[in-house]
Amino acid sequence: MTRVSRRRLLGTGALAAAGAAAGAAAAAPSAAARTAPASSASSADVVVVGAGLAGLTAARDLVAAGRSVIVLEARDRPGGRVYGLPLADGTTTEGGAEFIGPTQDRIAALARDMGVETFRTYNTGKNVYFRNGKRSLYETDGILGAVPPDWGVIDLQIALLRLGEMIKTVPVGEPWKAPKAAEWDAQTFHTWSRSNSLSSGARFLMDAFASSTLSVRSQEVSLLYVLHYAAAAGNESTPGTIDRLINTRNGAQESRFAGGPELVPNRLAERLGGIVRYNAPVRSIVTGSGGVTVHADGLTVSARRVVVAMSPAIAGKIDYSPALPASRAQLMQRYPMGSIAKFVGVYDTPFWREDGLTGQAVADSGAIDATFDNSPPDGSRGILMGFINQANIRRLDGAPEAEVRAAGLASFTKLFGDKAANPRMTAVQRWDNEMWSGGGPTGVAPPGALTAFGPALREPCGPIHWAGTETSDYWTGYMDGAVRSGERVAKEVDAAL
Amino acid sequence: MTRVSRRRLLGTGALAAAGAAAGAAAAAPSAAARTAPASSASSADVVVVGAGLAGLTAARDLVAAGRSVIVLEARDRPGGRVYGLPLADGTTTEGGAEFIGPTQDRIAALARDMGVETFRTYNTGKNVYFRNGKRSLYETDGILGAVPPDWGVIDLQIALLRLGEMIKTVPVGEPWKAPKAAEWDAQTFHTWSRSNSLSSGARFLMDAFASSTLSVRSQEVSLLYVLHYAAAAGNESTPGTIDRLINTRNGAQESRFAGGPELVPNRLAERLGGIVRYNAPVRSIVTGSGGVTVHADGLTVSARRVVVAMSPAIAGKIDYSPALPASRAQLMQRYPMGSIAKFVGVYDTPFWREDGLTGQAVADSGAIDATFDNSPPDGSRGILMGFINQANIRRLDGAPEAEVRAAGLASFTKLFGDKAANPRMTAVQRWDNEMWSGGGPTGVAPPGALTAFGPALREPCGPIHWAGTETSDYWTGYMDGAVRSGERVAKEVDAAL
Repeated sequence: MTRVSRRRLLGTGALAAAGAAAGAAAAAPSAAARTAPASSASSADVVVVGAGLAGLTAARDLVAAGRSVIVLEARDRPGGRVYGLPLADGTTTEGGAEFIGPTQDRIAALARDMGVETFRTYNTGKNVYFRNGKRSLYETDGILGAVPPDWGVIDLQIALLRLGEMIKTVPVGEPWKAPKAAEWDAQTFHTWSRSNSLSSGARFLMDAFASSTLSVRSQEVSLLYVLHYAAAAGNESTPGTIDRLINTRNGAQESRFAGGPELVPNRLAERLGGIVRYNAPVRSIVTGSGGVTVHADGLTVSARRVVVAMSPAIAGKIDYSPALPASRAQLMQRYPMGSIAKFVGVYDTPFWREDGLTGQAVADSGAIDATFDNSPPDGSRGILMGFINQANIRRLDGAPEAEVRAAGLASFTKLFGDKAANPRMTAVQRWDNEMWSGGGPTGVAPPGALTAFGPALREPCGPIHWAGTETSDYWTGYMDGAVRSGERVAKEVDAAL
Repeated sequence: MTRVSRRRLLGTGALAAAGAAAGAAAAAPSAAARTAPASSASSADVVVVGAGLAGLTAARDLVAAGRSVIVLEARDRPGGRVYGLPLADGTTTEGGAEFIGPTQDRIAALARDMGVETFRTYNTGKNVYFRNGKRSLYETDGILGAVPPDWGVIDLQIALLRLGEMIKTVPVGEPWKAPKAAEWDAQTFHTWSRSNSLSSGARFLMDAFASSTLSVRSQEVSLLYVLHYAAAAGNESTPGTIDRLINTRNGAQESRFAGGPELVPNRLAERLGGIVRYNAPVRSIVTGSGGVTVHADGLTVSARRVVVAMSPAIAGKIDYSPALPASRAQLMQRYPMGSIAKFVGVYDTPFWREDGLTGQAVADSGAIDATFDNSPPDGSRGILMGFINQANIRRLDGAPEAEVRAAGLASFTKLFGDKAANPRMTAVQRWDNEMWSGGGPTGVAPPGALTAFGPALREPCGPIHWAGTETSDYWTGYMDGAVRSGERVAKEVDAAL
């Protein structure tokens, strides 16, 4: 399971062969196994539930370690929250996870292995700041570089300095061990931001920070969780910072994937081959003396270990027998998904670039509160992407697509002018309506959850192991965290087998 | 569905007959239907999921209205969170919901209908207050009558006066409409209590208030939720107050049920007869053009409407197809159950009474943080009941019963002296380990949930209706709220059919 063996395996195509053999008890590949039809009962060393980046990475490493693996995926596609949103002309644009930035080493390595290249997010020019009915432009990077009126700038900078000092004291992966964990987990981020700023401008931007990074209102989330989210925006040699979280340049939004990020899970799933079973939502996991039995629609798999590679909230929808330990069961009740939708408009050209704009905006009103330039690398057409904010998505969750389109284009026009009013086409991805995600981009911890239940995020329950970006130390909530969690859980399971 | 028709029905035994007919499409009872064996596919006007007080009450009223009903219950017993905990000698004691008090009219009426009598909770003498290693006694009623050292008394009284004023402004059943809902839902109760008291005594008792009424730490719960919980401690003619919530005399702990509260759901389920199907956990609810299909283990029922009479968190474990509206789906991720266990010691006599004690105590340390006298009405033996506090239940969830017993008896001895050390027998009920409850006594709202998702608590999703004490206006979290929710949902469904 070293990187060498993984590379060798991926290079020779043995992975797919090993995968096809997982239905048989033996791990050695055979021509017969490769052509065997999908059966309704199988066995493997390990069942992985969920073919997102976490589950696929875990499967890859376990197969590389010589284990037989079956991956059960509820959807008809791999990738989970990484998704190429179809456009009317047959192309796709990023409908889910999208960016990659510095210190995100593990998703970078995986993308390289899969032959997926990255390119810089368009970031030349000024950003738009819309607040209190007034549109202005600013040059600094990231949403927190937006300029609140008058002394709010200083107010915000002081609050950010305080947050920065607090973040340094939060142990990555174990925020409940921070010296002030109890105090910080007892309050919402909203409470802290109100106690530590006085200007409406600073308060607005701190709310926008919570909204744009976590897709929750600042009321919903523990201060400790927010601090840890920033502490996790780094790697083993580079401490996490708020700047790296929110910035485009040198930050988490620095680059995108040529051809779309979904190429990474798609290609990995392809290499894993027949061991990935689609349209197989897992309904129950039964632990017995000899291991586990995993019941999916149309398929039952016996295994020695199971990896549940899903967010805690969605993992909580599976029936576990016997019941999980209470700390895990109650954790899954206390880790809700953010609320998120992405709206895109496709234009003949990225016209905002000619106006000296990056395509990035922050707004306090309208359906969309943050935007990015999602155009293809060569700028051959222009794609604006906007996040639909928390207040509006509640109203638009059930709205017909025409209503979402009208609301989205009204926002785009307000932010980027009349040229935004008539796109060639639009599309929307409402993650809250996705049964197998239940929201996005990530599960978040309300006050009190991390200090009382945090260790249950990763702690195995007998033969049941947990993965998913929520369980990662670094870059939790991001693609990089998903890959890290898959690599961590594969080591954990391999050692336990 | 008037009270007259209900009484008539319950008086004649027609309820059971109507129930037995529910398997057939016709509502009229027949001898054949009455003796038909349980089949694997049935149909009814309405399926009720959950045979707790809410579900049984809904079924009772719908049957009384001439509807055919099938109740599907996951456990092998009715009652849900109302449960007679078995003791070694074959008797039972209250293992779950226990008390009844003034303004709890609906559970009172139901108990009367079922022939279950109530009696006063033993409340003569002094209460024990254990804090900072020191045991003292106090005479006032309820945990907030405990005497913190020095000026903490005044500090607490001022905080309670403030809370009382705030509570008056919260509309019962619709806390999100309170004038200051946004502000109060943006913070935890812990944040408010720290901002509005300075003494450690007042702060301790406010935490004890959250812990003893909601079984959560004050960090976990929205201030708005706590205010509403108190506002709901009344009825249409009597506004709710904190005093009524926490007091024994004139409060929610005033009386108990002779023979145990489980007699109420047990007798109601008995009268409903064969329409209540046990060991039938519902796995999925499929909405089609003609109604719903409810899939339980071993049984599938087609119906025009379904009532899900469970807490939001546990209702969220069912698979809904098509997916529920996002606001409901996300609400179910944001309404975790409290953490609760009950430990009882049974003694030859209620010895604490001879010492001039009520048997009620509040403590800041040890496994148990609050106690009550759970002896039978005639005092023929003594039963002490203690709630295991939030910090300890995490450690004791998975502990062997002997360890729980040792921890519980250590607490009892500290509070009531050496006579407590040697009970005739003990028992423990750990609700967090109960798969079909997932904690107790009730689901609670973390910050941000009520203002963004509150209306989804009750709003039907097509033919799917919601009941359970969490959906009640008055006495949410209590048996009375469960009954009220069943009565409300039955009207709602009957009107929709």
